[in-house]
Amino acid sequence: MTRTSTATPLAPHPDRLFAADPAARTVARTVYQAVADAPIISPHGHVDAALIADDQPFADPASLLVTPDHYVLRLLHANGVGLDELGRPDRSGDGSVPDGRQIWHRLAAHWDDFAGTPVRYWFETELHDVFGLTEQPSAENADAQYDHLAELLTTPAFRPRALFDTFRIEVLATTDDPTADLAAHARLAADPSFRGRVLPTFRADAVFDPSRPDWRHVVTSIGQAAGIDTGTHAGLLAALRARRRYFIEHGATATDTGVLDAGSTPLSTAARERIHTTALRGPASLTEADAVAYRHDMLYRWAEMSVEDGLVMQLHPGVHRNHHRPTLERFGPDTGHDLPAVGSFTEPLRPLLEAFGTAPGFHLVLFTVDETVFSREIGPLAGFYPAVYAGAPWWFIDTPAAIGRYRAAVTDSASFTKTSGFIDDTRAYCSIPARHDMARRADAAYLASLVVSHQLSEEDAVRTAHRIVSDIPRATFKL
Amino acid sequence: MTRTSTATPLAPHPDRLFAADPAARTVARTVYQAVADAPIISPHGHVDAALIADDQPFADPASLLVTPDHYVLRLLHANGVGLDELGRPDRSGDGSVPDGRQIWHRLAAHWDDFAGTPVRYWFETELHDVFGLTEQPSAENADAQYDHLAELLTTPAFRPRALFDTFRIEVLATTDDPTADLAAHARLAADPSFRGRVLPTFRADAVFDPSRPDWRHVVTSIGQAAGIDTGTHAGLLAALRARRRYFIEHGATATDTGVLDAGSTPLSTAARERIHTTALRGPASLTEADAVAYRHDMLYRWAEMSVEDGLVMQLHPGVHRNHHRPTLERFGPDTGHDLPAVGSFTEPLRPLLEAFGTAPGFHLVLFTVDETVFSREIGPLAGFYPAVYAGAPWWFIDTPAAIGRYRAAVTDSASFTKTSGFIDDTRAYCSIPARHDMARRADAAYLASLVVSHQLSEEDAVRTAHRIVSDIPRATFKL
Amino acid sequence: MTRTSTATPLAPHPDRLFAADPAARTVARTVYQAVADAPIISPHGHVDAALIADDQPFADPASLLVTPDHYVLRLLHANGVGLDELGRPDRSGDGSVPDGRQIWHRLAAHWDDFAGTPVRYWFETELHDVFGLTEQPSAENADAQYDHLAELLTTPAFRPRALFDTFRIEVLATTDDPTADLAAHARLAADPSFRGRVLPTFRADAVFDPSRPDWRHVVTSIGQAAGIDTGTHAGLLAALRARRRYFIEHGATATDTGVLDAGSTPLSTAARERIHTTALRGPASLTEADAVAYRHDMLYRWAEMSVEDGLVMQLHPGVHRNHHRPTLERFGPDTGHDLPAVGSFTEPLRPLLEAFGTAPGFHLVLFTVDETVFSREIGPLAGFYPAVYAGAPWWFIDTPAAIGRYRAAVTDSASFTKTSGFIDDTRAYCSIPARHDMARRADAAYLASLVVSHQLSEEDAVRTAHRIVSDIPRATFKL
Repeated sequence: MTRTSTATPLAPHPDRLFAADPAARTVARTVYQAVADAPIISPHGHVDAALIADDQPFADPASLLVTPDHYVLRLLHANGVGLDELGRPDRSGDGSVPDGRQIWHRLAAHWDDFAGTPVRYWFETELHDVFGLTEQPSAENADAQYDHLAELLTTPAFRPRALFDTFRIEVLATTDDPTADLAAHARLAADPSFRGRVLPTFRADAVFDPSRPDWRHVVTSIGQAAGIDTGTHAGLLAALRARRRYFIEHGATATDTGVLDAGSTPLSTAARERIHTTALRGPASLTEADAVAYRHDMLYRWAEMSVEDGLVMQLHPGVHRNHHRPTLERFGPDTGHDLPAVGSFTEPLRPLLEAFGTAPGFHLVLFTVDETVFSREIGPLAGFYPAVYAGAPWWFIDTPAAIGRYRAAVTDSASFTKTSGFIDDTRAYCSIPARHDMARRADAAYLASLVVSHQLSEEDAVRTAHRIVSDIPRATFKL
Repeated sequence: MTRTSTATPLAPHPDRLFAADPAARTVARTVYQAVADAPIISPHGHVDAALIADDQPFADPASLLVTPDHYVLRLLHANGVGLDELGRPDRSGDGSVPDGRQIWHRLAAHWDDFAGTPVRYWFETELHDVFGLTEQPSAENADAQYDHLAELLTTPAFRPRALFDTFRIEVLATTDDPTADLAAHARLAADPSFRGRVLPTFRADAVFDPSRPDWRHVVTSIGQAAGIDTGTHAGLLAALRARRRYFIEHGATATDTGVLDAGSTPLSTAARERIHTTALRGPASLTEADAVAYRHDMLYRWAEMSVEDGLVMQLHPGVHRNHHRPTLERFGPDTGHDLPAVGSFTEPLRPLLEAFGTAPGFHLVLFTVDETVFSREIGPLAGFYPAVYAGAPWWFIDTPAAIGRYRAAVTDSASFTKTSGFIDDTRAYCSIPARHDMARRADAAYLASLVVSHQLSEEDAVRTAHRIVSDIPRATFKL
Repeated sequence: MTRTSTATPLAPHPDRLFAADPAARTVARTVYQAVADAPIISPHGHVDAALIADDQPFADPASLLVTPDHYVLRLLHANGVGLDELGRPDRSGDGSVPDGRQIWHRLAAHWDDFAGTPVRYWFETELHDVFGLTEQPSAENADAQYDHLAELLTTPAFRPRALFDTFRIEVLATTDDPTADLAAHARLAADPSFRGRVLPTFRADAVFDPSRPDWRHVVTSIGQAAGIDTGTHAGLLAALRARRRYFIEHGATATDTGVLDAGSTPLSTAARERIHTTALRGPASLTEADAVAYRHDMLYRWAEMSVEDGLVMQLHPGVHRNHHRPTLERFGPDTGHDLPAVGSFTEPLRPLLEAFGTAPGFHLVLFTVDETVFSREIGPLAGFYPAVYAGAPWWFIDTPAAIGRYRAAVTDSASFTKTSGFIDDTRAYCSIPARHDMARRADAAYLASLVVSHQLSEEDAVRTAHRIVSDIPRATFKL
């Protein structure tokens, strides 16, 4: 695009995220260059496999770039833009939604509120590298930029599969319901024209918590999907095992689980069956203590199943879901008000780790949104238990600054080998390369800081960078 | 002052707090210079309005510079100097207090214990810039420095109003009792020769906690001040509303509240009235659970009133007051042993935010003395709720290092727009310019770090610095 | 040693741990050089006094360098090497242990897993400076390096006392059982040919917790050692006082205590006696609440005794001991799975500090493995209470990065004077100089950062460095 006369240029700097010091910068460049073009391994994310399988053109710039990106949405909302104004369907509204152009104008009007944030940092890279924008969004250029983007989306190069290649994605893990038929995954696997790997991830959070209104429905559905009666807890476990096998047959190497806390105390068979039976009568008949005990036992069973079938177990406790009920009621879940809680791993995971922490082949990747646990809990756990891996900073803290803090906190106890590699955890498909690039740069800057303070040789730094983007995620996620 | 031959020079460096790297330093200088001389907006502090209104000369150097500065007092006490030796009235003593010169000698004798601390950092600026000292305090020069300071305080240029101009203070918010007549504020507002703004802040902590021995007295006093019977909870709320209006009429734009925790669960009218009636019979008749429930409800009401009348709500939970009872008994409160507690916002504030988090015009500024909540709670809350603002590091953590950590932690989720700007929170009048200068330098250093790592353009950094010292506090505090 | 052709050199850089920026590096060098060769004061460690007193040659390289170093052991275990493979006696095994050469091979095979970690950082210094190795360990050179090391250990220069001199150790505090006869300490003190100071430290953790299976045995043993009946709590306190005097007579200046939490509420004499009597009947007759109350009271008594006899009180709460029971059962305690817990000081220590926080001569050094307490609790406590000292980062966080964070967090409130100086806390005798060198470098880097940002003069930085390695530990530990 040609620039308008008053526009501010959008030109991501080749040395961005590197330290200013010339010596450190030179090393960071070397380390980064060694991995800048490495294929992307994305072992944890939320892109829909059908998007790739169907390969339909994207509808419009806003629904591709703004509406699905919770980072962008949150910051606009915090600065006074309603979710209804950003295209989220409003149950209390009249059914009308703003068109994409209006949404883009709102983004442009608040572009200044993003100054200095990591969201703007990677959004700039995305807009520049993927879409060729060369001006910062503004009221003046909003229409022109929107037209430019909309036109690109009609071209073959901007279809999902073409972008998959352009982005150099080698592995993309999706997140899937335990009852999913994984048809899109199967289609992709069977398609000789598609060379990437799109793998499902088994995520069955609802089954953990019998106090959820949808728990009974979920348990029944899993039973139907597996062809096994889940009226007993033993039946549920059998059905889950069957569904996990189904996922493995479709390429899955991992499960993913979000729970409020990481409690993992097992129950006796009798106790489990009793709570299961009670819960099937409906949440009203269940005590809170029983619900919690059931959930903690299920986390223990999850590890037990992973030890059996080899699926990597990802765990991210500590998020308050749907903090603002009025927003939940109007706009549904996943609308920006899931919020971090205090993290805790060492004590609650004790029963699980006592049983499985040294089990051969068991991989447990711990993620947190509470940074304080990196040096206090996750690093020390990953620095003793062969099974434990320190997950990369995630969600609220997958930023250049926090990645630096994570490395500085976790490397001391867990080194690099016991970490996960970067995960993008995203629904915003086009942000994937920009965000992996950010992580590679942040890691290069960290490694360079070790080199210039003579804690690591430059050769080892380059080798470590390679391991972080390739060997480590492959090993940790069994890819 | 001329220097004695053996003295160590006191000469604050023009580039202090900036990074050593030449590129980063050059940017930091540019950013800092753009705001170095901007007027001071101090929206949260503890200077007495009568000090400005009366404009009397200060009594002596020690009672101006040492005794009211809790930072200085704490560090001397920690190194073995008794509070009685520092001029704090001692209830167990014989009524004698050291004279100012003795106190200054004690400061000089322990000057080395301040080496490398932020207290010494800004004290040096204060002594140099305001009082023209050019030597580090020492046993040798203590008398000469004391004489020099004492002489200055007799001159017109060192009267409170003259310093107000010298310091370039534009807005100074005080902290005031709900029953205060605000006469000094009124005098200042009515005085055409005074061009600054000195605004009251409504602070009624005692009313929150019915287990306090002084609660009944406070509630009665507020009723008397408002001319409303506070024998019922409804009456108390009406009286508080009346007093808030009175404060608004005298220029107030904000309230300030310190509570042990941020619990905000509302009570039914009946429950509130019941506890209120019980509490009026005296703390002995009150259960602890009722006292806590009453306090949590009051926090909810506070937000409700702010939504109604537009006063900005400042909240700083998480301080253990008067940790050392023997010191409390001898020297009273505010003597250096209020200590930080674990911060918690996301869960306890849920009821309040559910009701008012998206209410138009509601501003809730969250302060903490527990840094761990910046990236885990305050940033994410300010990054979703339009009402929430991330307060600047405060009290124990308003230091160059902690300001850097705050920016690095909060900007990721909340950007700059959803923050408060610096607050000095001080009783030490002459430290105000040095401490705002410190914040401007620390922010310039942080912004420069974003510029040299190419996360922000230099133009945006300068604009952001301007916003931090002017637009942001004006908007956040509705000035 | 001559290098093999393909080997990677092992050559610690003279500027390691210093910032890359030339100005900061120049200052750091100056500060470091001023203390690089200062004698080592090690006021807290786990070397056996008999090792020095007996002065026998070390058995073999692995049992000297690998097996006793829990940092090395943990990281190998985390990467899949069993503790049995590393020479830890295995109760479930056949009694065979690998020979030292095998262990060295395992270390070499996993050398890459240490890349970038502080463990490798100081291990490299140790291998190079003490043993003259010039190649990174590898499969290729493992035999040659092992032979080289084994040969050195047969020479007089590598006997413990010779190394004591080579390491320039001036004071080495050991950690000793309350019933210890301290014969080795006495032999050393009586030996005119030995000029160092090897001091015992009184550590009686078992006596705090009457729910421990060994509590009754410990209490009885202390009574026997003291010649005082410990059938009553008063008797136990008298016996402890006697044993403390015995330690003082043998040079002790400090006690050391590890507890799960820092609760310190005192009990009445009657309550203490009642629980004591109950506990002597065996753990089964004791309630958990009574056990906790007894432990908290004992912490209070510990401080009371320190006020009486002048022993410095070291306290490190917040460690989950023996997290992985199967490992405990196979390999015993101290096998790498003690893990950090959440730290808490301000509230639990309130009773103790209320009574003794301003007691003349009382020194209470607080250590933590939870970094979040540095700016929130330990710094502020040490910044008010004359008795409180902020202990150096310890165990999981005694690393270059964490030392920097500690200084940045603690100096704000506690300055340098209210800190402990570095403690190595080690069983790995030969790692002592490398680890003190690391701390000196990390502190030099921190001090240099203050100098180049003009918060401290270079002269004050050099003086502060001297104080940190000499005056401060001498004053804090009363050496």
